[in-house]
Amino acid sequence: MNARLSVNFVDGATVSAADRGFTYGDGLFETLRVVAGRVPLWDRHMARLRAGCERLRLPLPDVDALRLEASRLCEGLDDAVVRITWSRGEGERGYALPSRPHPTLVLSAAPLALDASAYDEGIAVRLCETRLATQPLLAGMKHLNRLEQVMARAEWSDAAYGEGLVRDMAGHVVCATAANLFAVFGDRWATPPVEACGVAGVARAEVLAWREVAVEAITPGRLMAADEVFLTSAVRGILPVRACAGRSWTPGPATRALQAHWRTLGLPLPTMEGFPK
Amino acid sequence: MNARLSVNFVDGATVSAADRGFTYGDGLFETLRVVAGRVPLWDRHMARLRAGCERLRLPLPDVDALRLEASRLCEGLDDAVVRITWSRGEGERGYALPSRPHPTLVLSAAPLALDASAYDEGIAVRLCETRLATQPLLAGMKHLNRLEQVMARAEWSDAAYGEGLVRDMAGHVVCATAANLFAVFGDRWATPPVEACGVAGVARAEVLAWREVAVEAITPGRLMAADEVFLTSAVRGILPVRACAGRSWTPGPATRALQAHWRTLGLPLPTMEGFPK
Repeated sequence: MNARLSVNFVDGATVSAADRGFTYGDGLFETLRVVAGRVPLWDRHMARLRAGCERLRLPLPDVDALRLEASRLCEGLDDAVVRITWSRGEGERGYALPSRPHPTLVLSAAPLALDASAYDEGIAVRLCETRLATQPLLAGMKHLNRLEQVMARAEWSDAAYGEGLVRDMAGHVVCATAANLFAVFGDRWATPPVEACGVAGVARAEVLAWREVAVEAITPGRLMAADEVFLTSAVRGILPVRACAGRSWTPGPATRALQAHWRTLGLPLPTMEGFPK
Repeated sequence: MNARLSVNFVDGATVSAADRGFTYGDGLFETLRVVAGRVPLWDRHMARLRAGCERLRLPLPDVDALRLEASRLCEGLDDAVVRITWSRGEGERGYALPSRPHPTLVLSAAPLALDASAYDEGIAVRLCETRLATQPLLAGMKHLNRLEQVMARAEWSDAAYGEGLVRDMAGHVVCATAANLFAVFGDRWATPPVEACGVAGVARAEVLAWREVAVEAITPGRLMAADEVFLTSAVRGILPVRACAGRSWTPGPATRALQAHWRTLGLPLPTMEGFPK
């Protein structure tokens, strides 16, 4: 089944070729999971979108209208992934901001099917060669300049790898190409900072609000010493990492506790036996 | 007069909202000047586009068809600016490269009018606060991830500034938001390297081929000590800098010689007295 698309609240699948989203990647996006019409992480998505608009000097979208439109596109879908793109819209030639911006809103909705084995057993991840540049002006935002992620993801096509971990220029592991990273050392949970590079994931924010987590740089060597490693994503939820760079893990109690929390939020994660409550 | 647009060789002004150019900034562009149907820097534009395609693993466009289409869009225009955008085209959700890419080609053409006073007297430039991130994987290319330039250009709206100079994270001046930078010290010409950040401009390449230029890091302090400073752009040509950060310059013999070279290439630069040969 193809994605359902709307542009500026009208069913449609095209944008202007002069849209600054297309010409400069000048905009933001959110990718969210809609379960039976509900979006458990909605407020966090909107908080990040709002913060990004302020940093990029974009007008704010009408959040209530956005919510209604996302619901409309998800009608009849039990479990869906919705992408919201909010670009600066058409502009004249040149980088200068339009004096009167008319942003473009694109929504797409598609059915979501999650792979049970990934939640039961975990996924194997690759350590990418692509490094993330240090750019505090843009770090944390889910903006439309995603060539680093494209280049990192292009490093492998072997389906045995479910994700790739990406390092910063100093060699610290920052995140996966499309998920955040957590490592568990005994009672201590840790996740890398995203003030210099990387995306401040909405699922990551949920974990940070749920329990104490040290936000600290993690070297590949330290990651190998973790008791548990998992990835977080607003769409894919809590993914145990079962293998990376020759090391293997079995999903442990910390990961299982967070998966259980995810289910209580209303974000079911499948197992080989189905969808536990 | 509005821009004329074609998408995949057909008159049109829209692209798919699922185009990776729009969703990730996954593509390249060239902005070129067409004078009476001729594109004096065509080969350099195509060399850069080809190099960018190889680095981003994009298929190459049909260069001959591209040339014909650019000519078609410029019919009746004496002096025109053409933008070529070459994106990876539609993709499924996620960063992974499409297994069978169908790139999107967008061409736009618009009349070009250059401001004579800029070439006679020079322009005043601002020193931007926005810093360029170090990313050798993407540096030099004219790719569609241009939020750094958007942020730098958004720093000022005062029309007294014709451009803004942008520094790297170490504080060296790299380029302007949409032009390359040269400084002249006696007989020595210098321009910053673009292997870590910045764009390898087509006009810059023409200057480097025309005469000896030292490619070296330039601090703001050293720039202030230059005898002449000018910017280069494939579209705007050779722009003397007449003021920056309290220092002023008068366009000198080096800048004038390069402007004369530009005219012999078939790229006229106006003066208050008209277009000299």
